[in-house]
Amino acid sequence: MAISISPALEQLVIGIDIGGTGTKFGIVDKDGNVLFSSEISTRRHVDVDSFIDELYSALGELIVKAGGTGRIKGIGVGAPNGNYYTGTIEYAPNLPWKGIIPLAKKIEDKFKLPTSLTNDANAAAIGEMMYGAAKGMKDFIMITLGTGVGSGIVANGHLIYGHDGFAGELGHTIIIPDGRLHAGTGKYGSLESYASATGVRYTTIELLEKSKEKSLLRNIPKEELDSKKVYDAAVKGDKLAKEVFEYTGKILGIALANAVMFSSPEAIVLFGGLTKAGDLILKPTKEHMEANLIQVFQNKVKILISHLKESDAAILGASALAWD
Amino acid sequence: MAISISPALEQLVIGIDIGGTGTKFGIVDKDGNVLFSSEISTRRHVDVDSFIDELYSALGELIVKAGGTGRIKGIGVGAPNGNYYTGTIEYAPNLPWKGIIPLAKKIEDKFKLPTSLTNDANAAAIGEMMYGAAKGMKDFIMITLGTGVGSGIVANGHLIYGHDGFAGELGHTIIIPDGRLHAGTGKYGSLESYASATGVRYTTIELLEKSKEKSLLRNIPKEELDSKKVYDAAVKGDKLAKEVFEYTGKILGIALANAVMFSSPEAIVLFGGLTKAGDLILKPTKEHMEANLIQVFQNKVKILISHLKESDAAILGASALAWD
Repeated sequence: MAISISPALEQLVIGIDIGGTGTKFGIVDKDGNVLFSSEISTRRHVDVDSFIDELYSALGELIVKAGGTGRIKGIGVGAPNGNYYTGTIEYAPNLPWKGIIPLAKKIEDKFKLPTSLTNDANAAAIGEMMYGAAKGMKDFIMITLGTGVGSGIVANGHLIYGHDGFAGELGHTIIIPDGRLHAGTGKYGSLESYASATGVRYTTIELLEKSKEKSLLRNIPKEELDSKKVYDAAVKGDKLAKEVFEYTGKILGIALANAVMFSSPEAIVLFGGLTKAGDLILKPTKEHMEANLIQVFQNKVKILISHLKESDAAILGASALAWD
Repeated sequence: MAISISPALEQLVIGIDIGGTGTKFGIVDKDGNVLFSSEISTRRHVDVDSFIDELYSALGELIVKAGGTGRIKGIGVGAPNGNYYTGTIEYAPNLPWKGIIPLAKKIEDKFKLPTSLTNDANAAAIGEMMYGAAKGMKDFIMITLGTGVGSGIVANGHLIYGHDGFAGELGHTIIIPDGRLHAGTGKYGSLESYASATGVRYTTIELLEKSKEKSLLRNIPKEELDSKKVYDAAVKGDKLAKEVFEYTGKILGIALANAVMFSSPEAIVLFGGLTKAGDLILKPTKEHMEANLIQVFQNKVKILISHLKESDAAILGASALAWD
């Protein structure tokens, strides 16, 4: 990147975004520029300490490029089930590390830098509020539609952490009681089991089995089906593929309606892979949201797509924690 | 009531709680004693101005007893779909007045006293936080289970009003997509259509029609069935009546789980008629809440029953608005 770095006086922060599959990290300046960034695998590390070792060595290279540890003010981490109050990751269904992991402390010990941690989606919400689509808003909900479904809820200008630091798990709210099993949590019918990349895959397989409809997707081996391939088929006019997005949008729309009736946000900011399906998913989502809202909430709530670069948003959000 | 009133110096406030059926009001002192209270019908007044006329005359008598208007600092009103920001009631499905009603202004003009207004359940939440089961809590949810289902959500020590003042409508969140029709809203499968007194009545009628089970409730004409009669039958061991509460508790439990995963409260305070069924409804509610929570939230959230007198709680909450 051709961004000029000002003299040693300017302080920088590190943002780390831990996902179920990979971990992205970067060095960020005060204006929200991601100066250097890279990525390692999360999934490969069954042991959290080996994960931190690889993170240390990969981040070390970036720190050198940025002018050394002396310029780094601190580290912010976004992680699934990350607890802002305690700096721990607790029982994260999508991570390889089980139980309660004191991640902020482990990183602090290794890097010798002050470290704060929160939920990955909370971090993304902070990023949107500081640099993105929710700039200046006091009441909004951020929903990340990736491998899983995360959320960060801002009310009265503050993130809702709840009494224990774990608020904002909309992805695990039940939309279809006794519905589809979520393998990670053992719960039935949660938003995440439908409106995630994984959920779209399952919906496609279910529809292919249930319906007699011809479909381009029947030519793809089941193991290779993913939301991108369903999107490609839908764009070509494939009826069954379109139905997959219709159904996903229906579930997501109900979930958004419920969220609106809870905290009455000015906007819902959507972010992540599934949003790339554009109107194929947004149209049914918006329709079903409005259809399930009582009158007082109708035609008021904006559904916005994050315009931050996908890789940057989470890093920016996590890094914002480190400025305080 | 044998409460001594201190000399003319002590200021008092008025709390008014507007419900779908009746409106309760009282005069309250700084310690949260309801000194004088009474009630008029809401339902009988198709016209809001005739409602305010009767309210003025009924409250006038209490004001005289309390020592005259000079002692009253202001009026706080709790009403369904009441908007704290604008002082209006907007499209309240359970009230006889349609559209947008500038109620705070109408009351202010009539009584010549400063008037604030909020959602009835928000008012109840403030009451619980000031005088009740949620005293000292910074994160809790208040749920009122009456003719309808209301809620007030407190996070970081503040009520969540949302961007437009209407947050906290958990009663209208969808629990069973495409489920039971809610006559007031035209929506399908909302919490209120199951976990209200009206909902219990419908569940009973449905179960009586669907099942062949003997039941004491079969001796009661359909029009006379209500949640009290179902309770009485359940206490006598009636299997079908118990099933009604099981089912109601299941729906309520899912809704509570969803609310917990949203704002992670320390406690949920339940209030209103249905709570009188005690363990008949609380046991399944708690069970289904826990069963639908992901691990990180399990066995943490207290379900508390409001110990404020039903008539007092809403008046106290509404009145608390008037002290500011």
